[in-house]
Amino acid sequence: MNQIQELRQREDRGLYQVAPEPEITSPKGFSAAGVHCGMKRRRNDIGLIFCDVPASTAAVYTMNGFQAAPLQVTRQGLAVEGRMQALLCNSAIANACTGEKGLEDALEMRKKTADSLGLSEHLVGVASTGVIGEFLPMERINRAIPALTGGLSAEGCGDFSQSILTTDTFTKNAAVVLTVEGKEVRIAGTAKGSGMVHPRMATMLAFLTTDAVIAPESLQELLHEVTDETFNMITVDGDCSTNDMVSVMASGKAGHSPLTPNHPDWPAFRRGFAHVARELAQMIARDGEGATRLVEVRVTGADTLTEARQAAKAVVGSSLVKTAIYGADPNWGRIICAIGYSGAAVDPSTIDIFIGETGVVQKGRVAAFDEEEARSCLQREKVLLTVDLNRGNHEATAWGCDLTYDYVRINASYRT
Amino acid sequence: MNQIQELRQREDRGLYQVAPEPEITSPKGFSAAGVHCGMKRRRNDIGLIFCDVPASTAAVYTMNGFQAAPLQVTRQGLAVEGRMQALLCNSAIANACTGEKGLEDALEMRKKTADSLGLSEHLVGVASTGVIGEFLPMERINRAIPALTGGLSAEGCGDFSQSILTTDTFTKNAAVVLTVEGKEVRIAGTAKGSGMVHPRMATMLAFLTTDAVIAPESLQELLHEVTDETFNMITVDGDCSTNDMVSVMASGKAGHSPLTPNHPDWPAFRRGFAHVARELAQMIARDGEGATRLVEVRVTGADTLTEARQAAKAVVGSSLVKTAIYGADPNWGRIICAIGYSGAAVDPSTIDIFIGETGVVQKGRVAAFDEEEARSCLQREKVLLTVDLNRGNHEATAWGCDLTYDYVRINASYRT
Repeated sequence: MNQIQELRQREDRGLYQVAPEPEITSPKGFSAAGVHCGMKRRRNDIGLIFCDVPASTAAVYTMNGFQAAPLQVTRQGLAVEGRMQALLCNSAIANACTGEKGLEDALEMRKKTADSLGLSEHLVGVASTGVIGEFLPMERINRAIPALTGGLSAEGCGDFSQSILTTDTFTKNAAVVLTVEGKEVRIAGTAKGSGMVHPRMATMLAFLTTDAVIAPESLQELLHEVTDETFNMITVDGDCSTNDMVSVMASGKAGHSPLTPNHPDWPAFRRGFAHVARELAQMIARDGEGATRLVEVRVTGADTLTEARQAAKAVVGSSLVKTAIYGADPNWGRIICAIGYSGAAVDPSTIDIFIGETGVVQKGRVAAFDEEEARSCLQREKVLLTVDLNRGNHEATAWGCDLTYDYVRINASYRT
Repeated sequence: MNQIQELRQREDRGLYQVAPEPEITSPKGFSAAGVHCGMKRRRNDIGLIFCDVPASTAAVYTMNGFQAAPLQVTRQGLAVEGRMQALLCNSAIANACTGEKGLEDALEMRKKTADSLGLSEHLVGVASTGVIGEFLPMERINRAIPALTGGLSAEGCGDFSQSILTTDTFTKNAAVVLTVEGKEVRIAGTAKGSGMVHPRMATMLAFLTTDAVIAPESLQELLHEVTDETFNMITVDGDCSTNDMVSVMASGKAGHSPLTPNHPDWPAFRRGFAHVARELAQMIARDGEGATRLVEVRVTGADTLTEARQAAKAVVGSSLVKTAIYGADPNWGRIICAIGYSGAAVDPSTIDIFIGETGVVQKGRVAAFDEEEARSCLQREKVLLTVDLNRGNHEATAWGCDLTYDYVRINASYRT
């Protein structure tokens, strides 16, 4: 509901400001580059983020049992001291399900980048997205690395954002600015979503940067928490890729004393960080394959946070709800049904459901509502569904998109 | 794989025979009827199954938190003594999310049927499928009940099977015959699937009959076990309705000594029972909305039965796998990805994947396979995917269908 969004904005007001030009190189210490090395036909397909100093770094990875080689390499590097100074990412080929050779290739990418920048290997992260089961063209990649390291600049952020896309229809960037101990701190991020390539594996990647001073442990805890309420609350088609990763690098160049949850400016940093993550997550959902609308499902009044999240995800993930939204059909039966099988404790006699601002179910029974009004709420660019379980005090929001003919077309067309 | 199916058939051979004319009135003691009372435009919309004697009965119900009124009434009746003598089912209106009034209506349906047949109320079960949130037209239903009780016959099974359909495209029936202590025993069943009506809530109903002698407790245990390996292993779109129910009534008229798991003929009865349930489950999957193909996914070599089931259901339920099958695209990356996020323990270096008989992945790596051959396996009426995790000794099979333009069309078109 708009009311709820307004409430959130009011709470956040003054804690941070949305940066007019969202660039991952806007936090102090960062530069970036992106080039075309020949895996895609024309667009940039490999990019690099660099930090002047070893940045305090946190990362979360896919829960998929078949974790791609680059994720294994990045995880191992970060385990050394929780710091990263460069992150190399390619699109078009995922380097997943590639066995020993894939692992060697990911290690080679890392080594070549480290050598070119004069860094220890463990300070370089790698990520890949694209086709699974194919090997990386290492010669092309090795030729691209000097071009990337030599071309690093503050203006390279756009090239980088482009280089990580697969069939995304737009680049995804967000940034905020806030103050810690009176000093300006920036948080920025770029992401790619469920655009697909042959064989069309959806992969979500998000890379955040900040010049805040924060230890890897605090950053990791924050990233976990915020990922659970943002990136983990989006669904396009329920499939979870082998290559998903979210990372955040903190240069520490803002020069304040280290942030921890006890720091008086922690709320501002946490909310600003969550804002960037939420914006990127919503952009990924909005750019879901074939999507025509962003769908936001808010569940309130749940007994527990887990149940609120389960319920919100069940509704936003339901194929029947997704097709009803595509058809602008105020089909509350499908919403209540998804809530019912979500695993959340529910009481049929207390549930309220809103489509936009239109109450369609009150206390578990259909309300006398104007179908045309509800229908028009479903035709907006951003569709809001609100479910109040009227039981407890927990709430959660999930994001997704509608299910359209284009989703079937994109995913059913034979690889060429 | 065909090999596995052959194995299963060989194991089952001689234990039971498939009945050439699958009719729920073929077990001794049963009659049925179905009529049109005006909820649907023309087709039968209300039906009755009757047993000469109070049948030993078992039932399983939807796990959805919003269980429809008729299910609550049936469950309460069966709790009295585990017997049922009549089962009334209407289509078109689900009597779900209808509050106190809905419960009163379900109780009235039951009372009117019991009175008309001269039975105690707890011996009558009720079921409904169709629109949720609307009230039943009780006058029409009350007028139909005498027509149903007066019209019961062995030939009424076809009318009954039709009366429970919503937008199913065909009636679903299966039956077997076997011997217990040298006496002929029949097991039959009829079902409806995910055809949808305004507002298109998918509901699965299956009603089985048998003349075997078996106590309610043994029957309930068997039904639970078999439901877990059949009806609970199908998915059309992952949504689970408020009205799902499977019941089995045993008249005991075959005249052998009571069946329990210790009876020497138990294996024949169990396998025959599972055959009927499996056939009905497959028909429901095949008749999924917009489906052009039945998909069978078999997972072997899992550490546990639960993991085998999780993995098989993840593959058959993946929108990306379903669209790839619609497009006849041998896209093994999507299969391995679904296995990866299923929650089953996996080892990337041991997994084998077959599309039909074509090995596409060997030990976690793409095999040198003929794409055209794999493609042709995906163009069959029944598509078989086999995944061998090569870890343990557990296996499971799940059924579903492809995801097509018609699924989106059927579910996105505005209710009229």
